[in-house]
Amino acid sequence: MPTPTPTPTLHDRISESFARQKLMATLGAKLLSVSDGQVEIELPFSESIQQQHGFAHAGAIATIADSACGYACLTKMPEGSAVLSVEFKINLLAPAVGERFIAKGKVVRVGKTIGVATTEVFAFATGKPQSCVALMQATMMRVDPKGGAAG
Amino acid sequence: MPTPTPTPTLHDRISESFARQKLMATLGAKLLSVSDGQVEIELPFSESIQQQHGFAHAGAIATIADSACGYACLTKMPEGSAVLSVEFKINLLAPAVGERFIAKGKVVRVGKTIGVATTEVFAFATGKPQSCVALMQATMMRVDPKGGAAG
Amino acid sequence: MPTPTPTPTLHDRISESFARQKLMATLGAKLLSVSDGQVEIELPFSESIQQQHGFAHAGAIATIADSACGYACLTKMPEGSAVLSVEFKINLLAPAVGERFIAKGKVVRVGKTIGVATTEVFAFATGKPQSCVALMQATMMRVDPKGGAAG
Amino acid sequence: MPTPTPTPTLHDRISESFARQKLMATLGAKLLSVSDGQVEIELPFSESIQQQHGFAHAGAIATIADSACGYACLTKMPEGSAVLSVEFKINLLAPAVGERFIAKGKVVRVGKTIGVATTEVFAFATGKPQSCVALMQATMMRVDPKGGAAG
Repeated sequence: MPTPTPTPTLHDRISESFARQKLMATLGAKLLSVSDGQVEIELPFSESIQQQHGFAHAGAIATIADSACGYACLTKMPEGSAVLSVEFKINLLAPAVGERFIAKGKVVRVGKTIGVATTEVFAFATGKPQSCVALMQATMMRVDPKGGAAG
Repeated sequence: MPTPTPTPTLHDRISESFARQKLMATLGAKLLSVSDGQVEIELPFSESIQQQHGFAHAGAIATIADSACGYACLTKMPEGSAVLSVEFKINLLAPAVGERFIAKGKVVRVGKTIGVATTEVFAFATGKPQSCVALMQATMMRVDPKGGAAG
Repeated sequence: MPTPTPTPTLHDRISESFARQKLMATLGAKLLSVSDGQVEIELPFSESIQQQHGFAHAGAIATIADSACGYACLTKMPEGSAVLSVEFKINLLAPAVGERFIAKGKVVRVGKTIGVATTEVFAFATGKPQSCVALMQATMMRVDPKGGAAG
Repeated sequence: MPTPTPTPTLHDRISESFARQKLMATLGAKLLSVSDGQVEIELPFSESIQQQHGFAHAGAIATIADSACGYACLTKMPEGSAVLSVEFKINLLAPAVGERFIAKGKVVRVGKTIGVATTEVFAFATGKPQSCVALMQATMMRVDPKGGAAG
């Protein structure tokens, strides 16, 4: 059970790494919150992330979910660790329509090398209840900061 | 077993849908080839798709792999069909470094409603042998062209 | 959020289907509880389900998790429906050691054709706190009772 | 690309581990072949592995596929290694009907710690062409022989 007390240094650590993920800026995503075992990333809807029917592309949704899973695991790893995605699986539960999407990542377990996290992605639109549009289950790997030792 | 003879109408059909995927233009991806049961999508490396270590972000790799899986299935569906991702799972096999990436999607089986495809993503760099950096296994759903009937 | 009030007919319906899953008897698994959107299956540890290190085999754990996901979805489908697994993904979080395992399946979303559920598998041993040894995310398909229309 | 020359010691190593997987005997599965990067496991159909419609249960199919993936990876790991499943994902492509099933596991990549493999499961019946009923993509972890260091 993650405790909701955000440590400033934890936020700084994740935030600094997030800023180096240029794809996030390309998509318009931003880091919303960081706490022990939980990370939230927000993606406003825009034409630039559309798929062929005008919904948000599954790839854009997966991108923020993957980062949310990775950073949720990173909050539980020793300082100086970096994290790489080993694999992830995502179910697209409903067409991703809305004004913005929030990926809520939660750590499941972090061991010496391997971490597992899940992320729910919610869609928000004015005057509508939030709905869960995607669910990810991901496996992450702790690496040295240069990202060299990928297993 | 896909036959390698591209039908022009098949290419046109996929190409028209691909052009409406605005995320592809955002990332710089383009449709490389379409044949019966197989679709290739190319993504040049650029700063705008980077993750925190300077590699291509798993989300960008997953985006082209997801579309390659979807369109590989679509080549086996009746004309007038559209396709939506039900879910996908991707293993990141090695850091995605290279000058460009090519996602090669192949259909595994397409039934009345559900299709399954796999995609290998290869990295290319001058003077280096191509290497497989990711492997996806995806489930797709046939929908009416408006994309309404997602199950 | 599933409501914990078991309807007898729901239990009967799942129970009757479960009894026809001969693999459950082979492994020694039994149906523990059925409520709206939730199903629990218990598997006592025995030599007959071991893998090479003496833990419960990932396949045995996956078997009860798959059935728990399927039946959790079935509780949300119209009477007379049957359910088939489209696909599932499972993370083995820790070696499956214990006296018995309980798979707790919860529905995530059930649509017209497709359902998604997750299952946590917990290990129990005398004098030890319960631990989560596996997590599954699965896609199910509603079929006619004979199981013919698999998509 | 696996080379098809089976080394006797490789076969012995896998065979010895397989014999300790008591679940295999419980289901009636046997090790069919071992070569560099490839392992085949056979499962005869029997009532004892049935699901509710009389097909082979997805869990039984997943069990032999998981072992085929794990052992395919093990053929590429240093002698004295053991292997544990980190996670796997399986698509059930068609109802598993037949007289026997053969899981054909192939290694995709094995690194220092992590291995990835895929397995196709084929159904065989007298007078019928073989059909592929399931496809697995799995992540394995190299551990010390006692299986202690699961990450």
